Amino acid sequence: MNELKQKILTDGRLLDGYILKVDNFLNHQLDVGLLERVGEAFAERFAGVKIDKILTIEASGIAVACMAARHFGYPPVVFAKKTQSLNMDPDAYEVEVFSYTKQTTYKVRVSRRYLSAGEKVLIIDDFLANGHAARGLIDIVRQAGAEPVGLGIVIEKGFQDGRKVVEDAGVRLESLAILKSFEGGKVNFA
Amino acid sequence: MNELKQKILTDGRLLDGYILKVDNFLNHQLDVGLLERVGEAFAERFAGVKIDKILTIEASGIAVACMAARHFGYPPVVFAKKTQSLNMDPDAYEVEVFSYTKQTTYKVRVSRRYLSAGEKVLIIDDFLANGHAARGLIDIVRQAGAEPVGLGIVIEKGFQDGRKVVEDAGVRLESLAILKSFEGGKVNFA
Repeated sequence: MNELKQKILTDGRLLDGYILKVDNFLNHQLDVGLLERVGEAFAERFAGVKIDKILTIEASGIAVACMAARHFGYPPVVFAKKTQSLNMDPDAYEVEVFSYTKQTTYKVRVSRRYLSAGEKVLIIDDFLANGHAARGLIDIVRQAGAEPVGLGIVIEKGFQDGRKVVEDAGVRLESLAILKSFEGGKVNFA
Repeated sequence: MNELKQKILTDGRLLDGYILKVDNFLNHQLDVGLLERVGEAFAERFAGVKIDKILTIEASGIAVACMAARHFGYPPVVFAKKTQSLNMDPDAYEVEVFSYTKQTTYKVRVSRRYLSAGEKVLIIDDFLANGHAARGLIDIVRQAGAEPVGLGIVIEKGFQDGRKVVEDAGVRLESLAILKSFEGGKVNFA
C-alpha cells in the first residue's frame, strides 16, 4: 500500500537505528483518513472471504479494526484485553504472550460471550514482529472453536519471525507494508 | 440519542443492581455501525465549533473518537495512555487519576509532540461517572496550553458527580445518554 509506505518514510522515526516509531499516525496520534484507506486495503486483500467477526487487541489495533469493519459490512469487532492479572477468569479465553520489547509475559483475554464455535474470524493488528501476539490471538480463536480465516497486519517487520509463525499456524497473512531492513539508517521495504 | 438508549436497554446488563455492563457493543465487543451514528451525533451536538484535534483515552475511547473524527473533517485523534509506571517522562504531559472502581491511582499521559499551544481540542470518552478521568484529560489539554472546547460522552451516569466536575472546570459537556437511576433493577434515563 503506497500511501502507507510513503507515510512511514515521511512520518516514521527510526530510533537507535532499529526501533521504528510510528506514533504520530498509528500508535498514539491516529491519522483516521489514512486508516480508512488501510481498512479499504484489507477489504481488497480479503475480498470474497466470509467474515463473521473481526478480532484485534488493545490499544492501537482498535482503531485499525474499526475502520476495517466499515469495509466488511460492519461485522462486530472484538478487542482482546491485555492484563497483568494473575486471576484466571473462567468466562474468558486466555493465552499468555511473551513481550520481547518489555521482556515480560502478559495475559491476553477475550470473553467467551464474544467468540463462538464456527465463526469465521479475521484478525487485525497494527504490527507483526516475532509473531507472539498474533499466535496468541490465533490460539484464542481456536480455543473458541472458531476459525481464523486471515490475519491482516498494517506493518510487518519482515526480518523477524512473525510470518513463519503465522504460516506455520496455517493462517493466511496479508501485510500492507513489509519492512525489509533499516540498513543505512533508513527504512527499506521488501 | 434514541438508538443508543434502546441499545443500552436491550443489550446492557445490570450487575448487582448498580453496575451497567455494555461490553457487547462499547467496551469489549464494538458495534461499529452504532458508533458511526454516535460519531454523527457528536458532530451535530458540536456543530459550528472549531476543532483541531480529538483527544481520548485508551482503550474503548479510541473506537468512539475515530468514528467521531470522520464527522469532524478528519482531525488527528490522540489517545492518552494509561500506565502504572512511576517514571516521569519529560516528553509527556501527565496527570494522576484515581480509579474508583479499582481503588487505585494510575497515570495518564500524552506525548508533548501531539498537543500544542493554541489547539482547540474536543475530548471524547465512553463513560462519565465521577469525572476523574475527564478532569485529568482537561488538565492535560491545559498543560499543553491548548483549549478544551468540549467533552463528548457516550454514557453519563447522571447520579454521580461527573457533570459538576466538568462544568466547574469550565468545559461544555454533551452526553448522548444520561442514566438517571437503576431503580427497580432497570436502567432509567434522565
